[in-house]
Amino acid sequence: MDLKQVIKLVQEEVENLEYKGHPRELYEPMNYMVQLGGKRLRPVALVLAASLFGADFSKAINAAKGLEVFHNFTLVHDDIMDKAPIRRGQPTVHEKWNENIAILSGDALMIKVYDHFLAGNYNNLSDILKTFNKAAIEVCEGQQLDMNFEVKNDVTVADYIEMIRLKTSVLLGCAFKVGAIIGNATPEDCKHIYNFGEQLGLAFQLQDDFLDCFGDPEKFGKQVGGDIISNKKTYLMLTALNLDKSGELQQWVNAKNFDAAEKVHAVKNIYKELGVDTLAKSLMLEYYKKALSSFDCINVANEKKSNILSFGQLLMERAS
Amino acid sequence: MDLKQVIKLVQEEVENLEYKGHPRELYEPMNYMVQLGGKRLRPVALVLAASLFGADFSKAINAAKGLEVFHNFTLVHDDIMDKAPIRRGQPTVHEKWNENIAILSGDALMIKVYDHFLAGNYNNLSDILKTFNKAAIEVCEGQQLDMNFEVKNDVTVADYIEMIRLKTSVLLGCAFKVGAIIGNATPEDCKHIYNFGEQLGLAFQLQDDFLDCFGDPEKFGKQVGGDIISNKKTYLMLTALNLDKSGELQQWVNAKNFDAAEKVHAVKNIYKELGVDTLAKSLMLEYYKKALSSFDCINVANEKKSNILSFGQLLMERAS
Repeated sequence: MDLKQVIKLVQEEVENLEYKGHPRELYEPMNYMVQLGGKRLRPVALVLAASLFGADFSKAINAAKGLEVFHNFTLVHDDIMDKAPIRRGQPTVHEKWNENIAILSGDALMIKVYDHFLAGNYNNLSDILKTFNKAAIEVCEGQQLDMNFEVKNDVTVADYIEMIRLKTSVLLGCAFKVGAIIGNATPEDCKHIYNFGEQLGLAFQLQDDFLDCFGDPEKFGKQVGGDIISNKKTYLMLTALNLDKSGELQQWVNAKNFDAAEKVHAVKNIYKELGVDTLAKSLMLEYYKKALSSFDCINVANEKKSNILSFGQLLMERAS
Repeated sequence: MDLKQVIKLVQEEVENLEYKGHPRELYEPMNYMVQLGGKRLRPVALVLAASLFGADFSKAINAAKGLEVFHNFTLVHDDIMDKAPIRRGQPTVHEKWNENIAILSGDALMIKVYDHFLAGNYNNLSDILKTFNKAAIEVCEGQQLDMNFEVKNDVTVADYIEMIRLKTSVLLGCAFKVGAIIGNATPEDCKHIYNFGEQLGLAFQLQDDFLDCFGDPEKFGKQVGGDIISNKKTYLMLTALNLDKSGELQQWVNAKNFDAAEKVHAVKNIYKELGVDTLAKSLMLEYYKKALSSFDCINVANEKKSNILSFGQLLMERAS
């Protein structure tokens, strides 16, 4: 299968997920969330890694669903914590229903994650779950750091990178590694592919921050400029605050009453003047290159590696 | 080991749980919750069942910790949903910290549950996790039903029993069954001990509702009369509403402005006049007897069964 076929199949499998049960107040939000769309990057990554080491799609897909459902669980709870009204262009679960339902249906999704892993009948279940659990707890750590940073005044760029590593990158690393475990890869290759995923994840998140600011509102799904409006301490913001001698950016950060569109426009201009858009792109490329050199260490014939390389390129070229 | 020794050992093992990690805003609430005390019924049940079928304490304790941590996770999230300020005489996690921290540290506890199961190196891990996951999702269903019932006007006694079966009893059944699986019990014995735990759990929850109303405030840990104040549709309330021809109870239920102590006093009197306290005790005993007859079916020599029988008695005789 080529990359497009894998993506299509994974998307179909995830879209067809439907949890049946009673009461509907619990199950409807679970199904709403998993069927809300999204790029399904993590399950695609897992299936690609499994295939790299010779494991079938049918063997990998259960664990892949587990990872995607975990990602969706984190989104449901993160959206409550961030008071986010919109996800993928649609109302978030706590907006469409209420906060209690969002807490509980998130919890139920988290339990379903492990059901998917169990459904795979993996002979190395324990290894898979240990790898997954490590990443899962790191995702929680990252989310807590993210919340801490909202009220912390001395966040550094290094702090920020560590936060996004935990909150988003480790799960991509985990996806590739679990796929590799399913394919009975060696511990060394598991490590290399994990590192590849983690570094690719960092590049991806830096790009996500970039698109939150400079992306096309038609394609992005979330509110463009949201990070700027909420003063989120992203790489762009932290670097710009370090570079801005005029104090103009700090004034926008301090402003209590402002027109949102005006603030977004002004801050974007400051970013461009300071060149932090270019710096962000350059850092992104640096992580991408690191990722590729980890990938290069994997002891598998080059001709088998093309799907994952194309997947990496796809992530780096996305506009949304 | 006799029952007292098992309880003491389990309590020590759980009290000594400490999750280490960063940031502290995530880990402090996790440790606060698991160290907050409690009767540790589920892990004790699991260890007792394992022992009934010949498995060591050291083999069973990891899964036992998992079940107790799961129970604590549900309490953290339920307390948010119920806006409960006090748990075991201490501030709840969302009160002591905040709601976001309670959501996230609960999630992290949920992940740790599976780490405990993994730490046991069980050769029948998959069976254990399937049994646990079934109960875990049922607990979520029960909690959603409980919330639904708050705004539902035609809740029956049967609805209520089904709700508490899901919300609390299945986890006690699961505790006994997982212990039995660890002890390599036959599928029949696993079923019998599950039924025993589920029915004992129903008796236990009916008693909990009874104590919420008629318990000793010094011993109960929660606010006595809390269910009455909030018009919770318990067995007592639903049965009393069925029996009360005077309309006095309905008046207290409808009242918007009232003195809490006065309402508790009045409703308790109505319950006593209608005899629903006696009816509740009698239903409790019925479930307890059902539990004992399931237990009787287990194909193990009687002399090995004394610890679990004493445990059942202990639950039925508690005052808090």
